[in-house]
Amino acid sequence: MIVHRHLFGPGPTNAYPEATEALARPLLGHLDPVFLEIMDETCARLRETWGTAANRTLPLSATGSAGMEAAFVNAVHPGDVVVVAVNGLFGQRMCEVASRCGAEVVPVEHEWGTPVDPERVVAAHPSPAIVAAVHAETSTGVRSDIAALGRAVHEAGDALLLVDAVTSIGGIELRADDWGIDIGYAGTQKCLGVAPGLAPYTIDERAFARRVERPRSWYLDLGLLGGYVGDTRGHNPARTYHHTAPVAMVVSLHAALGRILEEGLENAWARHEAAGQALQDGLETMGLELFARAGSRLPELTTVRVPDGVDSAAVRRTLLERYDIEIGAGVGEYASSVWRIGLMGPNASPDAVRLLLGALGDVLGR
Amino acid sequence: MIVHRHLFGPGPTNAYPEATEALARPLLGHLDPVFLEIMDETCARLRETWGTAANRTLPLSATGSAGMEAAFVNAVHPGDVVVVAVNGLFGQRMCEVASRCGAEVVPVEHEWGTPVDPERVVAAHPSPAIVAAVHAETSTGVRSDIAALGRAVHEAGDALLLVDAVTSIGGIELRADDWGIDIGYAGTQKCLGVAPGLAPYTIDERAFARRVERPRSWYLDLGLLGGYVGDTRGHNPARTYHHTAPVAMVVSLHAALGRILEEGLENAWARHEAAGQALQDGLETMGLELFARAGSRLPELTTVRVPDGVDSAAVRRTLLERYDIEIGAGVGEYASSVWRIGLMGPNASPDAVRLLLGALGDVLGR
Repeated sequence: MIVHRHLFGPGPTNAYPEATEALARPLLGHLDPVFLEIMDETCARLRETWGTAANRTLPLSATGSAGMEAAFVNAVHPGDVVVVAVNGLFGQRMCEVASRCGAEVVPVEHEWGTPVDPERVVAAHPSPAIVAAVHAETSTGVRSDIAALGRAVHEAGDALLLVDAVTSIGGIELRADDWGIDIGYAGTQKCLGVAPGLAPYTIDERAFARRVERPRSWYLDLGLLGGYVGDTRGHNPARTYHHTAPVAMVVSLHAALGRILEEGLENAWARHEAAGQALQDGLETMGLELFARAGSRLPELTTVRVPDGVDSAAVRRTLLERYDIEIGAGVGEYASSVWRIGLMGPNASPDAVRLLLGALGDVLGR
Repeated sequence: MIVHRHLFGPGPTNAYPEATEALARPLLGHLDPVFLEIMDETCARLRETWGTAANRTLPLSATGSAGMEAAFVNAVHPGDVVVVAVNGLFGQRMCEVASRCGAEVVPVEHEWGTPVDPERVVAAHPSPAIVAAVHAETSTGVRSDIAALGRAVHEAGDALLLVDAVTSIGGIELRADDWGIDIGYAGTQKCLGVAPGLAPYTIDERAFARRVERPRSWYLDLGLLGGYVGDTRGHNPARTYHHTAPVAMVVSLHAALGRILEEGLENAWARHEAAGQALQDGLETMGLELFARAGSRLPELTTVRVPDGVDSAAVRRTLLERYDIEIGAGVGEYASSVWRIGLMGPNASPDAVRLLLGALGDVLGR
């Protein structure tokens, strides 16, 4: 039985048709010259999408959460102070992952629904090795100002800036080099419009020079992964076998990035902005209250309070069963009091807005 | 440009048509009830394929090499003695991965091309915590007798038996419970006939009880992953969000396992056996010399010596360019003196044997 869902939750989203078509192509060997060229182009397209010139920009062979692990396991030396801006679940997770890597973690807690405050983050410790933050908090629908955080961090000292861009990449403005992001990771299943399974990753020269030489993880060891993707700038592209690349997923990511760059990154951002704004306006017109603080709302992921007396899970179940529409529950203490509605990748469209508002209005009787 | 290759190397192999069809289906949310049912069935099918009743049998969200890492990172306590039977590249890699996890590694070296000797392995240390071995060495085409190793290890003490089944699962006899395998990992891109990207994994109660409570890897923490797949036996299937499952890959694996179990595991093994035997007979008839020791040759992966005076890389290039056939080079010191020819998954067929022998005979002029 084939089920067609409208994936309007916090991810995965529906895939771009180009990504689906590529996923089903005949497989290539992971050392086939045709595949190596696709891998090189994928890395080049990821550089453009991240807004970076960093040579070590590649798709890690696991989901976005492994990107977080790769970020810390390669960067944290035992006892390093890592300041983590926490304004949702993924900031909390950063603390846990960094701690397992041997960091002395200094969390800077923010109220959920609010953005990261660069001044408080920088004031938390005089000389951290790393400052980490989430660009787009998937748990709350909040956008933090990474440009401002980058300025503050780099003015204050020589800490590395480590950023989670899982829900921002391809959906809102992201400029890794301009903003001073030294290490970044993302996922494919949000605004890039690809199935989950890869973690787009970037690390600049400064961070690479300070990396852990023999990290605890062999699979995510960036020193070894450099040989795996080769010198993707085309100079002496010797390849070292590290692991078998997930070829179908890489070919699919390559196709989706091609589609996004053909549309134009800024056009894709504008499309997400328009869809998100229309959705948020429509929800407020319906009398619903948005959760994330005004001025820091993500267009690609909207959080909305469940009205008093409404059974959150029952609404989600009805949307799924009657309309094939998935939306997400809230997280943690907001599990049953907030919904999360994503319009990402191909779903950042006026049609999706109309469909979602119409169906939700029906179910709520508004 | 769509390229159709015959993937007759050491993996990835071409996918079963059922796996490709499933990969291109509309995406499901990772918490969708339809997907959760597919995940549960996938775990059940994996149990059957591993030959185990172990509840904690699941597809890890990364490639086979991450399966190796998960095996050690959850099992090795600091200073644990880990005896590794080394008869090829993947045994060597086990030593490296176990060492990064804090093990005191005792490697037991074997000549490449020969199987693991259970007596030597057991004699290497009086009380190891773990004994590890590769069932089907992808670097040499050798099958080791894991049933015999399991008997020897479990008679000698209470060490856990940790086995790499990347190239054996779905292609040759594998009986995890009967053979006393406590921890096993595999890949999807060999005899299971699925794209690379997942690591089928199994761990029994005994090994789970001795696991590291808070392993260095958050992503591969089996304690957390238990909640991710739920209680896959259907009792109180509460799910805990851990990471977003690579839904397309899981759905594809589910379909391939369905096809294999419909054929019957023993029939699939017999098909691989027949194809491999026909290939090896044909290569010897052509005057070529097989590399792996007689009696321990894998049917799904044949290693053959490059004839004197023949340029290994030129032959591989000609096969690829003229016939769209990929075969593999050798590994390490055998890089240019051995070829590796895989007939795995859908390629374990008389047609593939004829095609490969015909093309190779043409290129070699034999």
